[in-house]
Amino acid sequence: MTLAALPLPVAPGGTIGILGGGQLGRMLSLAAARLGLKTHIYSDEAGAPAFAVSAAHTHAAYRHEASLADFARDVDVITFEFENVPSETVEFLAALKPTRPGARALAVTQDRLAEKDFLNRLGIATARYAGVAGSAQARAALAAIGTPAILKTRRFGYDGKGQARIAGDHELESALESIHGAPAILERLVDFACECSLVAARGADGSFAAYDPPENVHREQILRRSQVPSRLALAQHAEATAIARTIADALAYVGVLTVEFFATEDGGLLVNEIAPRVHNSGHWTLEACMVSQFEQHIRAVAGWPLGDPSRHSNAEMVNLIGAEAEEWKALSAQPVALHLYGKHEIRPGRKMGHFTRLSPLAGPPGGAAGD
Amino acid sequence: MTLAALPLPVAPGGTIGILGGGQLGRMLSLAAARLGLKTHIYSDEAGAPAFAVSAAHTHAAYRHEASLADFARDVDVITFEFENVPSETVEFLAALKPTRPGARALAVTQDRLAEKDFLNRLGIATARYAGVAGSAQARAALAAIGTPAILKTRRFGYDGKGQARIAGDHELESALESIHGAPAILERLVDFACECSLVAARGADGSFAAYDPPENVHREQILRRSQVPSRLALAQHAEATAIARTIADALAYVGVLTVEFFATEDGGLLVNEIAPRVHNSGHWTLEACMVSQFEQHIRAVAGWPLGDPSRHSNAEMVNLIGAEAEEWKALSAQPVALHLYGKHEIRPGRKMGHFTRLSPLAGPPGGAAGD
Repeated sequence: MTLAALPLPVAPGGTIGILGGGQLGRMLSLAAARLGLKTHIYSDEAGAPAFAVSAAHTHAAYRHEASLADFARDVDVITFEFENVPSETVEFLAALKPTRPGARALAVTQDRLAEKDFLNRLGIATARYAGVAGSAQARAALAAIGTPAILKTRRFGYDGKGQARIAGDHELESALESIHGAPAILERLVDFACECSLVAARGADGSFAAYDPPENVHREQILRRSQVPSRLALAQHAEATAIARTIADALAYVGVLTVEFFATEDGGLLVNEIAPRVHNSGHWTLEACMVSQFEQHIRAVAGWPLGDPSRHSNAEMVNLIGAEAEEWKALSAQPVALHLYGKHEIRPGRKMGHFTRLSPLAGPPGGAAGD
Repeated sequence: MTLAALPLPVAPGGTIGILGGGQLGRMLSLAAARLGLKTHIYSDEAGAPAFAVSAAHTHAAYRHEASLADFARDVDVITFEFENVPSETVEFLAALKPTRPGARALAVTQDRLAEKDFLNRLGIATARYAGVAGSAQARAALAAIGTPAILKTRRFGYDGKGQARIAGDHELESALESIHGAPAILERLVDFACECSLVAARGADGSFAAYDPPENVHREQILRRSQVPSRLALAQHAEATAIARTIADALAYVGVLTVEFFATEDGGLLVNEIAPRVHNSGHWTLEACMVSQFEQHIRAVAGWPLGDPSRHSNAEMVNLIGAEAEEWKALSAQPVALHLYGKHEIRPGRKMGHFTRLSPLAGPPGGAAGD
């Protein structure tokens, strides 16, 4: 594979190409605009939310080579808002224009088994797991791993899609049926104290910047709220940051990446998964930081210096899922930052918007020295 | 004149029409997007900065009725980013779609003499002034007002354009020549302690919300920096807020309006001018408040509740004028929020971008009680 070289940095007036036109692409577009950069959104969805805020958009299939070639010609650098873009698409584009993060980051994070193997080769702890193809192998894996466990398709899962919990051996067959024989990974369910994530960025120059890790609450495997600060101990916070940096360096990563963790009662950290992109659990950075995760990603892929990830406030972000978005009128009267994604149709489980509440940092600087 | 009625509020998915496509229209578009609203920008400038972040745009003359009618059909409510839009344009549009703020606000603020008369009828203090048409009247006015004074065209002035200072009587003739006989106003120059402004909003329901007044520094009649908090005394702050509310109520205003003040050494306040729009001196609200002046204006014209104008931080905003924007690379490495407006061409005196620096509020809550 030939890789296009990037004349750095992309100057104001340049164009960032973004594969995917959902709310993440939309917020990336808004962030690029702040820096005087244009965006060109490529999505296979008619009326994708990001189209309404971008200078140009292409509505075409992700494997339509003529459209991809036209798209590549129009932009200075290419990135994506979701990890399930076909790897062939990224390889095709990477030969035409710098594409960040690259095909390697995508290959590792598109496949749950490859991802877990990658982490363990780096010495990073995860839940016990095994690859599963067929029911004989699944039974052996379940015996080794124990219950409760969770069966996940290796590819194309998000928000709990393609997953089945296994409380006891008798539930294995129905779990296998629910994923229709797709290649899978079996993981031991972790008894965690809390879930958290680390949103970090690696620049084109190898620089690294991490936001404070929020504590995350999921319901039905969909993120509901994220809160900073989390209950993580300082040592766990430092360990999470070091893990994210190890991952980013190993992938020669450029852009924002997110590592999801389980924090265990004994103070340990297990990596749950890596998202090669901006992340729902980082939306609070829009209000609580000078440079949001979206601007940080744009800065990284455009070859700009990374921004300061420190936060000036505590924050709580709450998702609006499905019909919850109908509460927009009541929420608009609350002292919160309300974000609605411009999606035409409310569907159960669909992320329609979010809101963020800020509060002052605990322990004002110098406050303890008072006179 | 018939006025179109507004079904309130404009729901997410609706479209705000904006006359003018400069940086203010651009930042209004970005704010509307956060709320799930679309924008349609109407500008007579090819490649206007706001076009790149709006769902639709019309590039046409402000008096082209067919284009205006098409524009009105496509939007739910109409507003503008600058006060020099022709009043005929606003009257034409107001008959087709709700247009906010209305023709009355525009008529008063487009004409410096009408504006000063309006203020004085409300009992609001201004510098001494007189209308001037022809050199005989100008001489009489100068004798009454005294020097130093400033001669300004009544209409179409901004950033110091159409203004001439008069240090002594002998400079009157050249001042009159410089404005080519346009109808004018002569104002006594104010010896101020500082300049400040108040950015406030009035909702469709008559509600009112004011941001803290920044202290502003101009150079060559162009705003260079704005800082909150200002050096205003609490009583002046309260008086400025009361004045803005009086003005907004008198105009039955809907949207954000800005009142510029001179604060005098003796603790007085004189109104310099009213801008019927979001304002350069309010850009710091993007980072220091949950709801920026841009979102506040969108909320008001769309019939939403006004947002909380309180600030969580102190802030300093610095404009990038002309070639100063070439410093973007160095600024991108500073811990500031950098904004570039996507203007293709750098011209002397042109506002190309700005940056904002935040700092913690002075006197942390409870900090003085320390132990």
